[in-house]
Order: sequence, then C-alpha cells, then structure tokens
Amino acid sequence: MPDISSPAAEASAILLIACPDRKGLVAAVSEFVFRHGGDVVHADQHTDEQEQVFFQRVEFRLRDFDLGPNEILPALAPITERFSMRCDLRFSDSVARTAVLVSKQAHCLYDLLARWRMGELRADIPLIISNDESNADVAAQFGVPFRWLPVDPPSRSVQEEAMLGLLRQADIELVILARYMQILSARVVDLYPQRIINIHHSFLPAFVGGRPYHQAYDRGVKLIGATAHYATTDLDQGPIIEQDVVRVSHRDKIPDLVRKGRDLEMVVLARAVWFHLNHRVLVYGNKTVVFS
Amino acid sequence: MPDISSPAAEASAILLIACPDRKGLVAAVSEFVFRHGGDVVHADQHTDEQEQVFFQRVEFRLRDFDLGPNEILPALAPITERFSMRCDLRFSDSVARTAVLVSKQAHCLYDLLARWRMGELRADIPLIISNDESNADVAAQFGVPFRWLPVDPPSRSVQEEAMLGLLRQADIELVILARYMQILSARVVDLYPQRIINIHHSFLPAFVGGRPYHQAYDRGVKLIGATAHYATTDLDQGPIIEQDVVRVSHRDKIPDLVRKGRDLEMVVLARAVWFHLNHRVLVYGNKTVVFS
Amino acid sequence: MPDISSPAAEASAILLIACPDRKGLVAAVSEFVFRHGGDVVHADQHTDEQEQVFFQRVEFRLRDFDLGPNEILPALAPITERFSMRCDLRFSDSVARTAVLVSKQAHCLYDLLARWRMGELRADIPLIISNDESNADVAAQFGVPFRWLPVDPPSRSVQEEAMLGLLRQADIELVILARYMQILSARVVDLYPQRIINIHHSFLPAFVGGRPYHQAYDRGVKLIGATAHYATTDLDQGPIIEQDVVRVSHRDKIPDLVRKGRDLEMVVLARAVWFHLNHRVLVYGNKTVVFS
Amino acid sequence: MPDISSPAAEASAILLIACPDRKGLVAAVSEFVFRHGGDVVHADQHTDEQEQVFFQRVEFRLRDFDLGPNEILPALAPITERFSMRCDLRFSDSVARTAVLVSKQAHCLYDLLARWRMGELRADIPLIISNDESNADVAAQFGVPFRWLPVDPPSRSVQEEAMLGLLRQADIELVILARYMQILSARVVDLYPQRIINIHHSFLPAFVGGRPYHQAYDRGVKLIGATAHYATTDLDQGPIIEQDVVRVSHRDKIPDLVRKGRDLEMVVLARAVWFHLNHRVLVYGNKTVVFS
Repeated sequence: MPDISSPAAEASAILLIACPDRKGLVAAVSEFVFRHGGDVVHADQHTDEQEQVFFQRVEFRLRDFDLGPNEILPALAPITERFSMRCDLRFSDSVARTAVLVSKQAHCLYDLLARWRMGELRADIPLIISNDESNADVAAQFGVPFRWLPVDPPSRSVQEEAMLGLLRQADIELVILARYMQILSARVVDLYPQRIINIHHSFLPAFVGGRPYHQAYDRGVKLIGATAHYATTDLDQGPIIEQDVVRVSHRDKIPDLVRKGRDLEMVVLARAVWFHLNHRVLVYGNKTVVFS
Repeated sequence: MPDISSPAAEASAILLIACPDRKGLVAAVSEFVFRHGGDVVHADQHTDEQEQVFFQRVEFRLRDFDLGPNEILPALAPITERFSMRCDLRFSDSVARTAVLVSKQAHCLYDLLARWRMGELRADIPLIISNDESNADVAAQFGVPFRWLPVDPPSRSVQEEAMLGLLRQADIELVILARYMQILSARVVDLYPQRIINIHHSFLPAFVGGRPYHQAYDRGVKLIGATAHYATTDLDQGPIIEQDVVRVSHRDKIPDLVRKGRDLEMVVLARAVWFHLNHRVLVYGNKTVVFS
Repeated sequence: MPDISSPAAEASAILLIACPDRKGLVAAVSEFVFRHGGDVVHADQHTDEQEQVFFQRVEFRLRDFDLGPNEILPALAPITERFSMRCDLRFSDSVARTAVLVSKQAHCLYDLLARWRMGELRADIPLIISNDESNADVAAQFGVPFRWLPVDPPSRSVQEEAMLGLLRQADIELVILARYMQILSARVVDLYPQRIINIHHSFLPAFVGGRPYHQAYDRGVKLIGATAHYATTDLDQGPIIEQDVVRVSHRDKIPDLVRKGRDLEMVVLARAVWFHLNHRVLVYGNKTVVFS
Repeated sequence: MPDISSPAAEASAILLIACPDRKGLVAAVSEFVFRHGGDVVHADQHTDEQEQVFFQRVEFRLRDFDLGPNEILPALAPITERFSMRCDLRFSDSVARTAVLVSKQAHCLYDLLARWRMGELRADIPLIISNDESNADVAAQFGVPFRWLPVDPPSRSVQEEAMLGLLRQADIELVILARYMQILSARVVDLYPQRIINIHHSFLPAFVGGRPYHQAYDRGVKLIGATAHYATTDLDQGPIIEQDVVRVSHRDKIPDLVRKGRDLEMVVLARAVWFHLNHRVLVYGNKTVVFS
C-alpha cells in the first residue's frame, strides 16, 4: 500500500476545500500556495449560492514547494480555521486499494479490470467479492483474489460480517458495486462514507429499485440511462456522480434495453470511478461537485 | 379546413395499422397496394412480441392508384376484417387545424408559430388560448386570434366550457399544450384522445408534477430532460412521443436549468408535433410506436 | 446605446484575462478584488500548458466595491503590467447592439428575434440585413428595420460598402451571420474581429464550404452537426465557439438532414451568442476558451 | 466451425435483399415467406430514392417453415431473378470466426474479448495478430492464440503474406482492426470485402489519417468522435457503419482527448461489430443501410 504521505517529487498536491462562502477565500488560499513556491496546475471553484457554500479544488506541483507533505495542513491551519474550512489533502500519485463487488453480470467487472491493467485507474484491485460463484473465472483471468460470499435474507448479517472482515484485511479504501445486486446494510455503508460507488441501471430518480429496464420498457421511454452514485443507506438516493443516456425506440425489447444499457453502465461507472480516483469529487448534502 | 377526402393527385396515402400478430399480414397488405397500382414510398412495421400486436405504416403514391380516396378503406375491408385490424387512412397533404395553449412562457409558442410560418408543419394555427394575457402580443405578431381565458380553481369548469366552445368553433383537430401550466380535466382530455400533445419539462417519469427543474436541482442530477407526450387524465402519465436530455453540472443554478431546458422543450415538442402531423405515431396501451 | 461605463449598482463586473502563465497570478487578481471590497460571484480559470498561456474570468459584484467603473482598469494597471496581461473589463448589464445578417432561410433569424423579445439575450437588435428580400416580413413582425442588400460577384464591393455604412450608422457591436450564405471579405471581417459569429451547418472541420448536408448525405455519415464560430478571413476556419450533432440514419434523405439540421443550427448558434453576450468567451490563436 | 447450412430448429433465417426499386417487391417476398409457413420476426426495408435502390431485411422463424436451409434460395430464385435481386441468406445462430488485429493500445481488444466471453457476440475469436508484442499477455489471459507479426515498410509485403496465411488457416470470416495502426494493402482488403471493420479515432470525414486527437486539439473542436467503417483501399474512406461523439472543452488536453476517446472507440466499434454479426448491415456504393 502506498504511503500517501510520501508522494514522489514530481507529483502534485490537491486541496479539496469546502466552507461557508466569504470574501477573501480565494485570495487567502492562492496566496498561501504562491508564498510557499507552489505552481498551480489546475484550479477550479464553485459557490452554491443557495446554500452559501464555497468549494475549491487546487492542484499544485510539489517541486519547488517549500513544505513537506506532512507540513502542508498544519501550515494551512490558520486559514482553515479562520474560514471554517473542511479541507482534504490528496496527492496525485496516490493509488487507492479498491474492492469490486459483483453479482452475476460481468461487464462492469471486466471493464474495470481491463482499465486497471492498462493503467488507466489510480487504483489497485486486490479483492473481488461476489454473491455468485460465476465470476471466479474472470477474477482468475486477471489474477485477482476472488471471494464467494453467497447471501440470502437470513444470512445477510453473517455475510456482511465476513465481507467487512475481507475489506479490512485488504486495507480497502474504495468499494465499487459493479452491478452487485444486493442492498448493503447501514453497518457497511456507514463504515465507508463516500467511498462506495454504485452503478444503477436507470436514469435516477426514474426507476428506482429493481428491474429498471423492465420499468423503462413498460413506461415506453425513448431514452434509457445509467447513474453512478455514492451508496447511502437510502436505496438509489445517494449523491449522483455521473449519468448518461442512450436512445431507444419501440423496436427495442427488454433484451435490447439490457444490451444497450450495459455499455452505458460500463462507461458511466468508469467515469465516476475516474473522477473519484483523481480527487475531483466533493460531496455536500446529497449532491456532488465534480470538477471535470 | 381542407377536405381530407380530396388529396391532391401528387399526394400519397398513409395506412396506419394495428392488429393481433398473425402470419400473412404483411403479404396481404402489400399485395393489396400492389394490385391497385400503388407505389410504396415508405413502409415500416413493428411487432410487439410481448403483447403479440403488429403495427404497420405504409405510405404509397396516389398517382396510378386505381382507387379513389373514399374507395380505399371499403376495398380494404376484407383484409381489415380478416385480421381484426384497426386501420387509419391519412393523406400526406392534410393540414391539421391546431390550437396552441400557453401560459406565461412564450418560447414554445414562438417556436411553433415560426415553424408554421416557414411551412415546416402540416398544420394551420387559427387559435391561441392562454390563461395569461401576456402573450397576446406574440399572437398579434403572427396574426393569430388570441383568447384570454383566465382560470382559478372555482372557475375552472366555466373556463373549460369556454375553451371547448372555442376549440369546436375553430374545428380544432390537434391541441398543443406549449407550456400550458394548467391541468385539463377529463372532460377536455376525453374529447381529444391522442390529439392533445403536452411538453413536460423533465425526463419522465422523473420529476412528475410541479417545478421539475427545482426537483432536478435538489436531486443533483447531471442531465435534465424534456418529454412530449399525449395528455391523458393521469398527470404526466400519457404515452411518450419524444424525449431528450442535456448535460448540466454543479455550476448550473435553477435559472440555468430553466434556460437550458427551454431549448430542449422547444425541440422535443417540435419533433413530437412533426411526428404526429406526419402520421408517424401509433398509440397502444400507454406507449407509442414512432416510425421516424 | 447603453453607456457601458455606467453599470447599475446591482450589476457585476467581469474581468477577462489572458497572459503568459506565471506563479502568483491568481493570488494577485483575487487579492485585488478582495482588497477593494469585491464579492466574487463566479471565477474560472484555465492554463493552456502547451502554449503556457493563462486565462481567467472573474465576475464580482459592484455593490460594496470601492472603485467606480472607470477606476477599475487604472487601479489594476500595476498587476496587468507586471504579468503582461491582456485584460478586458465588461459589465453584466451591458447590452450589445447586434445586427443579424440572413439570406433566404429564416429559422435562425426567427429564433434569435424570439429570444431577444423574451429577454433571453443581453442584446438589442436594431438592424437586419439580407441579400434576399423574403425576410422583410419577419423583420416587420418584430418591428426591426430591414435592409435589402442584394449581391452578386461584380457588386460585392459596393454591397459591402453599403453594409458597413449601415453597421456603423447603427453602432453595431456584434454581427450574427444567421445562415447568411455569402462570404464576407477581409474588409468587413477585419473591422469586427471576434465580433462576427457565423453558424455553419456541419460538424467542422468536416464538410467545409457549400452544401454540407449534400456532402454529409453522400459520405453516409451517421451523425450530422452544426458549428458556431467567429468569422475570420479563412472560410469556415475561425475559432469554434460551440458545436453539436444529431443522429441520422439511412432513412434520412437530404430534406430530412436539412430539417434535422435546422434545429441544431438554431440551438448551437443561440448558445454561442449567449456565451458571447455573457462575456464567457476568450479567443486565443484559433481556439476559444468558453467558461460555460 | 459451425456449418451455416445447418441452423438449429429454433433459429431464424435472415434475407438481406438489394435490388432496383420496383412495384410488387415487398408483396412478392412477404408472400413467399408466408406461403412456406414462415413467421416473420422482424422486417425492415428502405428505398434509396436518389439511386432507386430497394433494400430489405426479413427475418423469419424456421420452425414450421416448409423448406430446408439449402432449399430456400433455390425456391426464391424466380423472385430474385424477376427483380434482379442481390440476396444473402443468413441464419441467426451462425457464429463468425473472427480475428482481431491490434497494435499497442489494448482497450478495444480487451472490450471485444470480454464481450465474446460473456456471449454478447455471435462470434468465435480464435486468433489475435499484432505488430507489437505487448498484447501477448492479454491474449493469454483469454486463452486466444496470439501471433506477433512485426512490420516495417520494407517487410510489409512479407508480413501481409504471413497474415493472410494465418487468416486462411484459421478460416477467418471477419477481421476487426481494433486500433491496428497499420494500413492494409489492397491485396488484403480485396480478399475480405465488407468483412474488415476498422475503428478510426475521429468523427470522419474530419481528421482523416494520423494523430486525429492531435488534429482535433489543434482545431479546437468542442466534440470528438469515433467512426467504425468497413476498410477499403482508400484510407478512412470506407462505408461508415457507426459513429458517435463526446463533448470536450478547452480544459481537455491531448491525454484527456485520448482518454475520453478510448471509451468512444470501444463502444462504437462494439456496436458496429454487433450490427455486422447480427446481419443488420447492407453495403451499397460507399454507404451502409443499418437495420438497427
């Protein structure tokens, strides 16, 4: 596991800031970075005027920066305190230990494993968990440990305990529900706040819950969608990270919706995971700011 | 009002057929058209396998066709009876007398009037009705009679009576709810089955009812949509004709959603109206077949 | 014509900045705004790493700002000089005097006039010029002076002289080529740098030049597009402001491409004009930064 | 290799027809299918009015059809001759032996292999050929024979001879150029007419040739695209099967275009391959009819 307090010299640091909106915020942060020799690579900010909350993402090169990784937050403390900031510090070369949870359908799993192998994701994938044995072969193809944890209503509590043990043991920081057709209890969700990404196969909030393609077919919609969001204890209600749609017509039967939807699910989930791993997502209330 | 039984010689006839799916349907209809000298310009068909219903749209040139406009359905009767067909006959040069109902927002009204003036729609627009006086000027710009019918809950019944009188008097065949922010009662809706097209400013079934852009903002969606559908007595539940979406981000405040949504509403409504006026929509149950 | 040096108290000021990328830029500008009591409404920035150019758009409220409109740039001079900035100052309530040039097709003209009438554009439209007389009626509907300037190759120079006279006389700041099917000479283009917006009915750089829908049909593309760009002396080569596409199929004949394309052209042009009028476009080289 | 003349009883037959447009065509074909007890599952047709060519795809169940697979075309001969039809007969359960050619980038290769493994493609993949050794591991993961055929200009002829030998030996019916960054000579292309599918990483005809993302970046486009087409001897000029685009902005540097483009390439190529394998593509001239 990479030591995130030891970024490489050529890496950059990322500050993710949220605080009540006040004058002088941008000046204070940019002056801080400038004063310590930081070279801003990317800066983006947003003010939610309704909630009067200010968000900022500042990425700056560590080369020539006169503070060490562990000195940054302490040095920034006067500013974070003055403006009541919530401030996260990340490094561009961090690698998140990631578990993929999957049921029977393998398309998102295949897609994530391929992206990981091609080096597209700033993640390591040391664990795949499934309630269905069928994807053990996929895991084996990519050399990733696979754990089969079958589940039925009476055993859910025991199964989740085993799952939590596996996640802890593998030092998992991010959990991806890659078409994992089980609802996680609050016990699991609360342990990984904003660190469980789910893909739902509809354009939320349309077609919450089970069998959304069947629901879409019955309603006669002309577009179907997919939604990647952080899991919360309310089913399909968590903060949305990314969505997209594809056109369908009366010609498309349910298997066609499923087929067209698969491509959407893969791409929407992959984009959301990329945003997360590149420290581009800020959550507030039940919404996200995605600095894309 | 054009006499639809007298299409021009260079016009074509359109058969819209729905019936239980059985072998020999396509052969029977195409053989009929061929035997009478018809030249098929466009043919499209669809089978809903779940419902076992067959749909067909056949358009053929009247030039060289050996039956007069009024002789076609009688001559087809043996086939329609044998296959229990519901069969509509239309002509490509028909012009539908159309009323536009609007409240305060004028963008869909402007758009429809401009398309009508440019000859893009097979419609005539002899009547604009509004519960808000503000669009009288728009109507005057385009020389269309404008009727102001203010409405409040106690007066709704009286107002609808007046509206029905105006629609009847102007021989209206199609009613377009171009952001008409009132719910029509069953009395009105039932008189114009599949002849009232509404534009709802969300991606249905998400955000049914009032203030959908506010709902979308609160939910934090990454795309907003618009839906054109036939009005039924269930609010926002009628058969969907067309939908589309546009991307939004955390940067978009409610006025931005409203602004981006306006363009969607215009285009989605205009496409739905065009499909309807070109006899490309077949309704069954609560869904549409759109032969686009 | 509004006096742009006299914005209303509730307006905001917009700084559009471009300069060589250097450390301390953001800190200097944000500190300037903060020091004078400005409340940043919106800030966005971009660094073109290849060209090493920095761009920024800062919008701040004038209420509580301690400098008058005419004092801002002089007070900022030490910073603009130190960083070799190109810096434009705009005000959010400015209204650009705009001329629309059009040939025979009226859809973009209608659309722009309707948006103007509905108050969607920060523009006034005191002049419509056409090489075709047919749109005089449209202009009359909206009460806008219409000038017919027919053109043929030998008369082009005379016609352009007349056009320039009309533009000058009406104090025109922005020229919109709303399907104006004539090429403007360098004489005209050079007088209105980055102030002539053209809509081209293809996805540039595909299908440069004449009859792009015919070219698209012949090539068998599966999507058609539209492109809004600043006119330069190179035909269809100017900086692109906005583009979009719509799906087509083998079923779409050229008139269908034209019809589908019209909606695209309207929407793409309107978006580009909105970006321009809201001071969100920065041009550099042959590209744009659009702070959307 | 499946014997395509022995489809399973529950399979369906697909007729792909192209001929000069004449009256009675549809009647003749549908009557033929009906007379022999065929149950039409799907029928679609198209007339290119400019070229006066008629296209039809008819899919009917073999259950209850009174002709054997090898008897269908002979029985249809009177009709095909009378109407000068080009008529292909396919079966829904055929499985095309497919070779994937790839260079260094693996994303399309991974995607196709995963789809194949999940049973999404009616294909078998017994051969991967690359001019770059790096993807041998990917092939091994999926248990597919991998052949490394390095190429440089002087050796191209020898390399292509070896390639043709491998394709023949493996009874290859379809060749997919999954980001194979080499131009195939006419010798190869002519042996596999309409059976080589290439993915080009631009919205053709924009950015033909090398480094299209660099070209797109330099032009400052607001959308990037991908195009799947049949390879012909003219580079990037073959009949287009499928295209799509994704939005980019000034924030996207070339690596971002490459990253966003990868997802497009995967999905666009996969759709084109699916259309091809499901017998939904008809080529005429340099265009395609895709019955989607």
